[in-house]
Amino acid sequence: MKTENKLKKKDTIPNKKTAYRNFPMVPRVVFGAGCFSQLGEILLPMRKNSDAPFIFLIDDFFENKDFTSRIPVMFNDEIVFVSAEEEPKTEQVDALVSHINGKYDEKPSGIIGIGGGTLLDLAKAVAILLNNKGLAKDYQGWDLVSRPSLYHVGIPTISGTGAEVSRTTVLLGPDKKLGINSDYTTYDQVILDPDLTKTVPKDQWFYTGMDCFIHCVESLEGTYLNAFSQSYGEKALELCKEVFLDDVSEEESRDKLMMASWHGGMSIAYSQVGVAHAMSYGLSYLLGIKHGIGNCLVFQHLQDFYPRGVELFKQMLQKHQIQLPQGVCANLTQDDFDTLINVALGMEALWENALGPDWKTIMTPQRLQALYEKI
Amino acid sequence: MKTENKLKKKDTIPNKKTAYRNFPMVPRVVFGAGCFSQLGEILLPMRKNSDAPFIFLIDDFFENKDFTSRIPVMFNDEIVFVSAEEEPKTEQVDALVSHINGKYDEKPSGIIGIGGGTLLDLAKAVAILLNNKGLAKDYQGWDLVSRPSLYHVGIPTISGTGAEVSRTTVLLGPDKKLGINSDYTTYDQVILDPDLTKTVPKDQWFYTGMDCFIHCVESLEGTYLNAFSQSYGEKALELCKEVFLDDVSEEESRDKLMMASWHGGMSIAYSQVGVAHAMSYGLSYLLGIKHGIGNCLVFQHLQDFYPRGVELFKQMLQKHQIQLPQGVCANLTQDDFDTLINVALGMEALWENALGPDWKTIMTPQRLQALYEKI
Repeated sequence: MKTENKLKKKDTIPNKKTAYRNFPMVPRVVFGAGCFSQLGEILLPMRKNSDAPFIFLIDDFFENKDFTSRIPVMFNDEIVFVSAEEEPKTEQVDALVSHINGKYDEKPSGIIGIGGGTLLDLAKAVAILLNNKGLAKDYQGWDLVSRPSLYHVGIPTISGTGAEVSRTTVLLGPDKKLGINSDYTTYDQVILDPDLTKTVPKDQWFYTGMDCFIHCVESLEGTYLNAFSQSYGEKALELCKEVFLDDVSEEESRDKLMMASWHGGMSIAYSQVGVAHAMSYGLSYLLGIKHGIGNCLVFQHLQDFYPRGVELFKQMLQKHQIQLPQGVCANLTQDDFDTLINVALGMEALWENALGPDWKTIMTPQRLQALYEKI
Repeated sequence: MKTENKLKKKDTIPNKKTAYRNFPMVPRVVFGAGCFSQLGEILLPMRKNSDAPFIFLIDDFFENKDFTSRIPVMFNDEIVFVSAEEEPKTEQVDALVSHINGKYDEKPSGIIGIGGGTLLDLAKAVAILLNNKGLAKDYQGWDLVSRPSLYHVGIPTISGTGAEVSRTTVLLGPDKKLGINSDYTTYDQVILDPDLTKTVPKDQWFYTGMDCFIHCVESLEGTYLNAFSQSYGEKALELCKEVFLDDVSEEESRDKLMMASWHGGMSIAYSQVGVAHAMSYGLSYLLGIKHGIGNCLVFQHLQDFYPRGVELFKQMLQKHQIQLPQGVCANLTQDDFDTLINVALGMEALWENALGPDWKTIMTPQRLQALYEKI
């Protein structure tokens, strides 16, 4: 009988759940207001020799600001200011790698990324490509990196992306927005100094914090979760609620949002994001909308999928008097919508996590387009 | 003027808080029921050659049990069963190191510790001593280890000690119970398989879980805390409450207690334990009382210091019908009490964390003896 055979065959297939990911954690972390001043001391033993520079990739927001004088530059170390106006791109990575390889006789001692998710993702990718031949786009995908990356240090100056702790670097490539997801992506050292987030403009503070909040809602409501990721996700969500809904001091708020981002990033170990991230990827790809605000634009319309999360989100918007842009998708052509839909529906794991194995019957292209039309 | 000079001098002394510990995290972790079966696959790429064995140090509770057949032994790998009846000792570490060095021509590929806090601490210390000359007692203290330890893997079979994630291995030496606290102590790989805790006897499950609970109460109420440790400690405490006070399934309980132990261990990064741990150290040193039960024996009498924590603890005792031993200190001589007091008061950082800089005026030897006499 066919049914019996099927059952038997199914029984012999190893249960997916018996192979769990062996997750790489950041092996060194320092946390504390003002701890950025320890960077020089941390880098010193990692310097190969005086000809092997450290390359500091820094958000150009900090150019000509006092902060720059605190970068512990020595010998032929180089500071490269990078714009974070746009989502990080594979070609940016290739250009930085080519610049570094062309300029120095010795391979650098390491790469230090200082900024938000864009800078942190660029620095991770540059560290990979300095030790792996080819172009950044060749490594977009799962475990395609074969050689350890160059020593790299991540220093967030805005909280919420989780890029400081995750094993991926999400890049816009020539034909996809996709992460270089590998064990070698993770930072070797992270410096968590909440004081560095003092200068963040309010809107960006909110959108990036919401990246963490939305990510946690999606993980915790998803079908992929286990107790490891649940515990990190719950803590991150709780911290977000304290920061965005309670009345905490500015110092406490900075501390807690930095920890929310950290735990939120860890929670991804055995979980996956969902509807908002999939749709936000489409907005980034087609319209270059940044990840944080893209998530917010989408999430406000997802009450059917995340009722409690969307309710809290709207309270947060109101409390902080944030006005989301409107009419973002108002003038799009049908071709544009098709692109949005194709990119979003391509994120199969996200949909399966959010809606279960029958997600294709739940999220049809028509329904997805109707959601995009609201934005 | 004297006062002015003092003020000026104080101003030039760097604020203690500007130097934060650069904390080592376990660089690799796998979590999931049944994930122990991935051990062989994880060890394979770490094997130096067929003459360099893996040494498995296993709690002798598992001797002649089915579990032993699941150890992925190859070539000349060796399984050493170790009793966890007593607290781990420096001389045990030295004996194991001497046995291994004497038996094999090649240095082992690595050490795998399987068991509770005793086994996990022994395996950490053996891995250190295989790469650092001398005796275990030489390294008891802060950052005395100068060379990286041998590759070592920690696999807890009982939850609560946090030894799987901490940067210390607490050993009874010839004249002190003290940790080998170093960056090289931390495990290179941890395997968190909640199924391995299925066979734990109920009393031990409770006492070891309380190690985590008490540790979190002490950290969270202490004066050393920052937002990093607070977030881990709060999550661990919340998980302990769910496990010991709510009605959760056995599977969920195992998962959550394993995560509580993990987060509890992480919370120590920027915090310190307090009164219960200091007093429990005395009981271990003088009477050989194991750490978990020692904490419980002390903690029940600490309502003046941790009122809410002690109240919850008593609810937990009642819910699980745990009878703590009585009259433990009933027949001690004054010399014995003096030893208890000396060992306990020697843990200065713990007292300062618990009671502030004036702790000596709060916890006098008399008051401490009165507490011990109740046990």
